[in-house]
Amino acid sequence: MKKRIVLALGGNALQENGEATAEAQKAIATKVGEIIAELSDKYEIVVAHGNGPQVGNILIHEETASTDKAPAMPLETAVAMSQGQIGYWLTQAINNALSKKGKRRKVATVVSQVVVDKNDPAFRNPTKPIGQFYSEKDAKTLAKSKGWIVKEDAGRGWRRVVPSPKPIDIIEKGSITELIKDGTIVIAAGGGGIPVTRTKVLKRLKGVDAVIDKDFAAEKLAELTGADIFVSVTAVPYVYTNFGTSNQAKLEHISAKEITNLTKYGYFKSGSMLPKVEAAAAFAKKGGTGIITDINHLEKALKGEAGTIVTK
Amino acid sequence: MKKRIVLALGGNALQENGEATAEAQKAIATKVGEIIAELSDKYEIVVAHGNGPQVGNILIHEETASTDKAPAMPLETAVAMSQGQIGYWLTQAINNALSKKGKRRKVATVVSQVVVDKNDPAFRNPTKPIGQFYSEKDAKTLAKSKGWIVKEDAGRGWRRVVPSPKPIDIIEKGSITELIKDGTIVIAAGGGGIPVTRTKVLKRLKGVDAVIDKDFAAEKLAELTGADIFVSVTAVPYVYTNFGTSNQAKLEHISAKEITNLTKYGYFKSGSMLPKVEAAAAFAKKGGTGIITDINHLEKALKGEAGTIVTK
Repeated sequence: MKKRIVLALGGNALQENGEATAEAQKAIATKVGEIIAELSDKYEIVVAHGNGPQVGNILIHEETASTDKAPAMPLETAVAMSQGQIGYWLTQAINNALSKKGKRRKVATVVSQVVVDKNDPAFRNPTKPIGQFYSEKDAKTLAKSKGWIVKEDAGRGWRRVVPSPKPIDIIEKGSITELIKDGTIVIAAGGGGIPVTRTKVLKRLKGVDAVIDKDFAAEKLAELTGADIFVSVTAVPYVYTNFGTSNQAKLEHISAKEITNLTKYGYFKSGSMLPKVEAAAAFAKKGGTGIITDINHLEKALKGEAGTIVTK
Repeated sequence: MKKRIVLALGGNALQENGEATAEAQKAIATKVGEIIAELSDKYEIVVAHGNGPQVGNILIHEETASTDKAPAMPLETAVAMSQGQIGYWLTQAINNALSKKGKRRKVATVVSQVVVDKNDPAFRNPTKPIGQFYSEKDAKTLAKSKGWIVKEDAGRGWRRVVPSPKPIDIIEKGSITELIKDGTIVIAAGGGGIPVTRTKVLKRLKGVDAVIDKDFAAEKLAELTGADIFVSVTAVPYVYTNFGTSNQAKLEHISAKEITNLTKYGYFKSGSMLPKVEAAAAFAKKGGTGIITDINHLEKALKGEAGTIVTK
């Protein structure tokens, strides 16, 4: 029996050189595809990816060029668009890498709705900046006309901020699991998923303008699909305490309890390493293996020989 | 055993009232969702949809607001984006209709790559207009800078034209078939699919800027997934000869051979009823049932009591 792994890839990973053209992003996807194709001999693989820069650009285009006849799509639909976009690139890259290596295996992207709780405290305190920068005046006008909440972003201008609620369920989990069992490499929960709320009694779904953290969504996907291993693939091979100082120390094998304790010392930046650590610890607490590493150490990390490996 | 049907829904169907906001299109998707949810008791259902107006708007936004930092996505990637967008709307609409009717059934959208032949004659004669209208001067400048082919469009201005090659394979057919067998209502081959070419020996896939007719793609999907019935869902309940004249005659039960003969008389407009008739006839020639009708007659048509029904 192959072990089942869920990989959470950063949305920035496809734009590592800062180039946002389709060609440049596809070129990077090619490298990711080769690694995933290679791993697919030993593992059942699900890829969850971020979409920060991609959905940002979609929103810039939609909002800048919005007209009555061609109105801008809302954030939740823009997330769906980015799932199609990035999912296509990754699917094709994996398809081609499999062909290159002479392997026959199916690959498919499933458009994914991720349920959030409309009483999640994040809805009362939106913190996630999205889309383009505006002048203070334009931002405040947009806030009024569109009901947006806008904030000043680190001296770089004003931006819309949206809630970042926790994922509680994934609508397509059953179909995704079926595909994995059938031997398909699945791309799912892209960009943290399309955020939807679900009414209690009638179970009615409705998209909401929010951004779900992709590590939390991928961890939830790992739980719901019965994965053995959850990997947050990031820019560094290990999680470090005192990162970037002379005191820097890498974390290798560590328990969920220990790494959770370390979060209290402020070692890990929120919006950066903190959600990855929290997601890996959450998965480990439920009995799985949570790994944080970079793409180059992925194969070794899966053997227990590199990366920060969190277990119960 | 439930019969397996592939429905080809027009992309215009979601904008029947001319409103292109997400809200307006979702409202129409709700009605489509209810019909599909109801049919899902008796049939295994795959939904292939058009994307004309949606991908048109995506291209308008992408191209109008393109910058170096946020460059426009090419057509093939825009098709993938529209698959995420429309697939999400349809999935959610069907999910909600199922909940409303107290039915438990899975629904999933699979991002779909459709293979075309790079020697397809369509590549030598691009005919399908896409995206926004330009002045002659702007169109010719863009043609030069981007390698586009542009043409004057029926007195309304200049537009880019792209090839419309025939679909020959669907990369995700195996995963789609597995989902259908598992009881998932699948949305696939949206917008005729993301057009890709495949090299002969190395089987390498590459997206191409083209638009595949959604009826032909849906018919191919029906073949590849072993469907019993292919339905092109359009704006009229029947195919007619001499449509719109006092001689108008509706076609009910008809053989593939007969309806193919009628195409020679120019009864059916290319880019409109002709591809639907050709797709239904092609499916019938292979032993299936090809139906052309509107959404309101769909249920009766599946029972053989309405619509133009083409058999071998």
